[in-house]
Amino acid sequence: MATRELVIGFDADDTLWHNENIFEKTHERYRALLAHYHDAATVDRTLFATEMRNLELYGYGVKGFTLSAIETAIQLTAGKIRADEIQQLIELGREMLAHPVELLDGVSETLAALSPSHRLVVITKGDLRDQERKLAKSGLTDHFERVEIVSEKNEATYAGIFRRHDIAAAQFLMVGNSLKSDILPVLALGGAGAYVPYRLTWAAEHVEDLPPAEGRLFRLKTLRDLPSVIQSLNA
Amino acid sequence: MATRELVIGFDADDTLWHNENIFEKTHERYRALLAHYHDAATVDRTLFATEMRNLELYGYGVKGFTLSAIETAIQLTAGKIRADEIQQLIELGREMLAHPVELLDGVSETLAALSPSHRLVVITKGDLRDQERKLAKSGLTDHFERVEIVSEKNEATYAGIFRRHDIAAAQFLMVGNSLKSDILPVLALGGAGAYVPYRLTWAAEHVEDLPPAEGRLFRLKTLRDLPSVIQSLNA
Repeated sequence: MATRELVIGFDADDTLWHNENIFEKTHERYRALLAHYHDAATVDRTLFATEMRNLELYGYGVKGFTLSAIETAIQLTAGKIRADEIQQLIELGREMLAHPVELLDGVSETLAALSPSHRLVVITKGDLRDQERKLAKSGLTDHFERVEIVSEKNEATYAGIFRRHDIAAAQFLMVGNSLKSDILPVLALGGAGAYVPYRLTWAAEHVEDLPPAEGRLFRLKTLRDLPSVIQSLNA
Repeated sequence: MATRELVIGFDADDTLWHNENIFEKTHERYRALLAHYHDAATVDRTLFATEMRNLELYGYGVKGFTLSAIETAIQLTAGKIRADEIQQLIELGREMLAHPVELLDGVSETLAALSPSHRLVVITKGDLRDQERKLAKSGLTDHFERVEIVSEKNEATYAGIFRRHDIAAAQFLMVGNSLKSDILPVLALGGAGAYVPYRLTWAAEHVEDLPPAEGRLFRLKTLRDLPSVIQSLNA
């Protein structure tokens, strides 16, 4: 394919900027708050179960996480948690929303190198306002032709984006840290995927095996390796 | 303008379906929960102040409302509220999210009459997944060419939508129950507005005066009056 026609989609959290490390710090403080009642593994397991149970109703993002964290704390303390401790959970959520955006290594340079000659789009899920705010804080907005904040990233989502923006799947490359949300649905539609693992992966995004996708699936150490992948697609 | 070229934007909450009445019921139960501590006016005023303080961080929608309601309850009871009462607030939020969608009078027929000959779009703010779910439940999806769920509805938002979908402001009519979010920004950009007041208006959407906008501002009793407005625009 000609690189001029290539459309490159980027996940945002843990692909363009750090995100799971913020959740990791919050989890540590959450475990500490409940340490009088339960061991860390029980806290983690119960919180994750609450999040999964609420996912259909709440969707992704910090606000739903905060509500699930409050609910789990009430459950794990059999209602003995104090109001000031619940207030601390609300503050934890607020700190996550107000957290500075820290770009991953090589992101600015790579986007600056690619944007003059390619259509770049962001495709991300989470709270609408939170994702918009992070993008604004990132200073990366001008590199992108379009930002799609969606409630789920599955085949139907990508197919809808392709249709709306007149993109052929075969000319689309998705870059992201989640095999489940960024790579597998795009490969299934006939697109290409550049998988850039982050140090941490949320359990809900875990995938066991990579599918066969000869010549359409690339594993990158950092976003700095993306231009050479694009050259190989063009070769 | 020729009606075939007219693009009609619809707000969703309290324009296509009931919404504020769900908040109203929730407020009643919220006041009852805090009635031991404060009178209804103090509860309402304090909750609204919390919502406005959190709006920039949380954005619109039920999840942010629930978090603000919990925070306000802790504040108004000086931390004496019990965990099981906070759990009740979480349940209230969940009930709002799971609430059936009840269409307003004349919505189905009006959209069915207009959609064969006009481009119809939804432009709404709130929680991403919640708005998508309500639209799916409404059974109205097929009438709309496009659904825009945005974090704020101001001039910049509408200008961005016009640009992305190649809409001239002068060929755009926005239909909604909020002067602030649906009508004023569109009039300011040179579009037309059909204001359909709902029985209740959230204080944050309140506007004192209508601007002068001869021939571009219509006040409707129900959506059933929309086709005749469109005829007059075409005349």
